[in-house]
Amino acid sequence: MWEWLQGSALVHDDLMDASDTRRGRPSVHRAFEHLHRDELRVGDAAGFGSGTAILLGDLMLSWSDEMLRHAATIDPDLASGPGAARLAAAFAVLDRCKTEVTFGQYLDVVAQTRAEVDAEAAMLVVTFKTAKYTIERPLHLGAVLGGADDDLLARLSAVAMPLGAAFQLRDDVLGVFGDPATTGKPAGDDLREGKRTLLVARALARLSGDDAAHLTEVLGTVDGVEAAADLVRSSGALEDVEGEIGRYAAEATDALAALPPVARETLAPLIDRAVRRDR
Amino acid sequence: MWEWLQGSALVHDDLMDASDTRRGRPSVHRAFEHLHRDELRVGDAAGFGSGTAILLGDLMLSWSDEMLRHAATIDPDLASGPGAARLAAAFAVLDRCKTEVTFGQYLDVVAQTRAEVDAEAAMLVVTFKTAKYTIERPLHLGAVLGGADDDLLARLSAVAMPLGAAFQLRDDVLGVFGDPATTGKPAGDDLREGKRTLLVARALARLSGDDAAHLTEVLGTVDGVEAAADLVRSSGALEDVEGEIGRYAAEATDALAALPPVARETLAPLIDRAVRRDR
Repeated sequence: MWEWLQGSALVHDDLMDASDTRRGRPSVHRAFEHLHRDELRVGDAAGFGSGTAILLGDLMLSWSDEMLRHAATIDPDLASGPGAARLAAAFAVLDRCKTEVTFGQYLDVVAQTRAEVDAEAAMLVVTFKTAKYTIERPLHLGAVLGGADDDLLARLSAVAMPLGAAFQLRDDVLGVFGDPATTGKPAGDDLREGKRTLLVARALARLSGDDAAHLTEVLGTVDGVEAAADLVRSSGALEDVEGEIGRYAAEATDALAALPPVARETLAPLIDRAVRRDR
Repeated sequence: MWEWLQGSALVHDDLMDASDTRRGRPSVHRAFEHLHRDELRVGDAAGFGSGTAILLGDLMLSWSDEMLRHAATIDPDLASGPGAARLAAAFAVLDRCKTEVTFGQYLDVVAQTRAEVDAEAAMLVVTFKTAKYTIERPLHLGAVLGGADDDLLARLSAVAMPLGAAFQLRDDVLGVFGDPATTGKPAGDDLREGKRTLLVARALARLSGDDAAHLTEVLGTVDGVEAAADLVRSSGALEDVEGEIGRYAAEATDALAALPPVARETLAPLIDRAVRRDR
């Protein structure tokens, strides 16, 4: 069920970012655009691609809800009594999550309209778009279905939020310096899209006035990707962000101690994966 | 709650159709595009407009579900027992409706990629995008919350489906010949957008080969709106469609007789409104 919700956000996000690929394959709007060019030919291929991507995202968003609703037909324990209360709690998490991710994406869209790159704004996007939506809320959803109380939810948040930050910062680093063969995205993809990431914010804060102006100028241009990557590297921001990733991962690892063994064993490898540089 | 679902579909639909206006005011993507041009200036105004419209539609779609879920907190009778069963039935209607409208919109998007204008395809779009989504399912939703059985739902459908068809055909006529002051849309808006409506399908079927080719050619062009409207009028398709509107309205009116008085009194004015030419 979470796959549908995540799929919906990714399909719409790729369309909003005009991303050509997702995990090395064409993004949905591009795939339908290609289908139109190859098979349909009449009308506007880009419009067909974006229209179908909007509708597919809507359908997946609707179906994520519908699937959770069907949980009670799959598991009769959820149909009444304490089980029904757990399912209601799961819907409260899902509702909150859907609103949070949309606001996170909106903050991201707004950040792209600013000339300056604001580290605080970038971190807020990380909080809503990655930490809460990708990690905290899915954990909460599973936990409340299993009958977790508020205290356990808070202890899951204490792992999820720093893990989400580490995960996104690793993603920022890979978006600039990652190997396309591993990431499935073109090298320097975030720079080409002009994304206002925390890595870029740290680089701009460290660079001299002229270099910072140069980075701002080439950010979001196709020709300036290499120059932008060189500036980010020479600024020392990469070391800053690697340090932050390490600190967030350590914070998440410390918080693991307060969780039941099964949760510790499931989450520890995710933390390892977030800090690794070759993901 | 239905306003949010409908709002979501309209915001995404206007974006997919690249409509500039909705009821005489800027469509959501255009409003945000203007906001960007006036206030933000950095980045791509059209991208900001479409991105925010996608997100607002997603949020409204999510909130429509959330609001129905909160019905049980507003009306305690829905929280357990027979009331909870009625609320579950309402969700089943909502789930079906959300899938239906998305498929209807997809059929519409696909229809725009065909060189020919197919009356059967146009009618299928009318069925899913208008009759079911705008009339039948909202009636069913209210009815099941009130405890309606399958028989009453079928009797509501017998009114809703022809009423929906009459309503959409009136909309088609207004989309070509309507007064902008009344419709809130530019004159000939459907022709400019190249919409594959039943009215256009009827006109193409009635016109001679040369005239039909001419209509196909100017459909969807800005300069060809007047020529297209003249061809539709001279084809006699307008009389065809007015006749169909009358027959559908009569069918809906006949089916009213099988409904309880309160439903009859509520629906009769809607049928009158669908047949009226000055709406």
